[in-house]
Amino acid sequence: MFDFTTQIRVRYADTDQMGYVYYGNYARYFEIGRVEALRSLGISYKNLEEQGIMMPVLENFSKYLRPAYYDDLLSLRVMIKEIPGTRIRFEYEIHNEEGTLIHIGHTVLVFISAETKKVVSFPGYIKEAIQRFFEKTLE
Amino acid sequence: MFDFTTQIRVRYADTDQMGYVYYGNYARYFEIGRVEALRSLGISYKNLEEQGIMMPVLENFSKYLRPAYYDDLLSLRVMIKEIPGTRIRFEYEIHNEEGTLIHIGHTVLVFISAETKKVVSFPGYIKEAIQRFFEKTLE
Amino acid sequence: MFDFTTQIRVRYADTDQMGYVYYGNYARYFEIGRVEALRSLGISYKNLEEQGIMMPVLENFSKYLRPAYYDDLLSLRVMIKEIPGTRIRFEYEIHNEEGTLIHIGHTVLVFISAETKKVVSFPGYIKEAIQRFFEKTLE
Amino acid sequence: MFDFTTQIRVRYADTDQMGYVYYGNYARYFEIGRVEALRSLGISYKNLEEQGIMMPVLENFSKYLRPAYYDDLLSLRVMIKEIPGTRIRFEYEIHNEEGTLIHIGHTVLVFISAETKKVVSFPGYIKEAIQRFFEKTLE
Repeated sequence: MFDFTTQIRVRYADTDQMGYVYYGNYARYFEIGRVEALRSLGISYKNLEEQGIMMPVLENFSKYLRPAYYDDLLSLRVMIKEIPGTRIRFEYEIHNEEGTLIHIGHTVLVFISAETKKVVSFPGYIKEAIQRFFEKTLE
Repeated sequence: MFDFTTQIRVRYADTDQMGYVYYGNYARYFEIGRVEALRSLGISYKNLEEQGIMMPVLENFSKYLRPAYYDDLLSLRVMIKEIPGTRIRFEYEIHNEEGTLIHIGHTVLVFISAETKKVVSFPGYIKEAIQRFFEKTLE
Repeated sequence: MFDFTTQIRVRYADTDQMGYVYYGNYARYFEIGRVEALRSLGISYKNLEEQGIMMPVLENFSKYLRPAYYDDLLSLRVMIKEIPGTRIRFEYEIHNEEGTLIHIGHTVLVFISAETKKVVSFPGYIKEAIQRFFEKTLE
Repeated sequence: MFDFTTQIRVRYADTDQMGYVYYGNYARYFEIGRVEALRSLGISYKNLEEQGIMMPVLENFSKYLRPAYYDDLLSLRVMIKEIPGTRIRFEYEIHNEEGTLIHIGHTVLVFISAETKKVVSFPGYIKEAIQRFFEKTLE
């Protein structure tokens, strides 16, 4: 599987009057995780769009185990556990600075043509970049 | 079951460069739906917090069937299908102006004491307000 | 001058851990005010974009006189005090439910072609719709 | 004067359907700049709040010279040009990766007691941390 971790600083803008990160803001964190995970593979989501491929979200899930607080430096782990076809599924785990698992989630995205809005097959160079991680696991 | 519909106008702030509502912004729409659903029952979430009860989110799920676009006037249907215990589950359906179902989702929230952050039992007056809808169904 | 008032409900998503509306969220309120003000004149910003005209923001200013709180039903007054040329200036006043003036601000926008990104002259039908209000004032 | 620069990556969540950073999202960037500027001085805004001092915003201004785009790595320069009294004024300049100045702005904040919500005098240790930069300038 592909496994990547990045850090996210909780901003004041992210909090709500409960003093927690507002529940809708984890989607933003997930986006950061996905994009930085792809970048670590040499894949730029920006370039992908410039090449006429968009990745809209089909499904998003969040489980809030513990709150995240203002100024927390969160560790967001991003995992791809299955080789993507026309869809790609990212799974997430968020730990706080004390190492407590506070959040889990997943997002499913699909590859579509920006022009036709139809589902397209997964670009070859991304497939290769990701497949390596699954081969490694088999060795 | 309890069943309520409210309308939500998509704002420019909600869109992203794909020209769709950004996937993280449905959580905001769900919040509006829940709060207006409770208000229709005479329950003010604001008052609830002033009485020392908070309702953090435990779980949130979104399925993106079709995109929502700028300036769409969405119909957000909010349903409570089970009598709440210490948790309350809201289910959602979003239709666009053409009547197409574009989004489904659900949120699970828990009642906690603002002071102790411990789970508390569901305030009696809310229970009564919601229970009526389940009795009606049985008639 | 052109003068329009709309109501805005403060959502949980808008608050921060200070218990106030996060300072960056007034821009969203201003957007709602501008778009609803134009709609009251029969002008749809969505249609404008479909006709190839965009209105990016050149300047935005906010003065925070008093906080806005969760669930407040704010009255947002939107004013156009000068006949627009290639630029249009919206001024705002926000009052809370007690009638207290809590916020003032303004936004300057420009009309550009979506295709060339160059400044374009102000569409005639909008000019007419707005000019009426200035003529009225002179009578 | 005090002068600090940090980098900000534009996220998909920040864009709107114009393909630009939504005009309201610069306030979030400014917040990041202020907090990281203070952190570089050994001042934690989080600790400040824990000590009972809050810094609500009194005034915010943005001038949009050029758009910022998705995935841009922006350089946000934060300056304090006057020794703060009960108020503190941050000035900003944002350059894109090509080195073009795309945005300027400022924010004025006030120090208040979290308990009484009254204006308080500027904490001594922050004053000292900032004053050093002004003395340096005089040498």
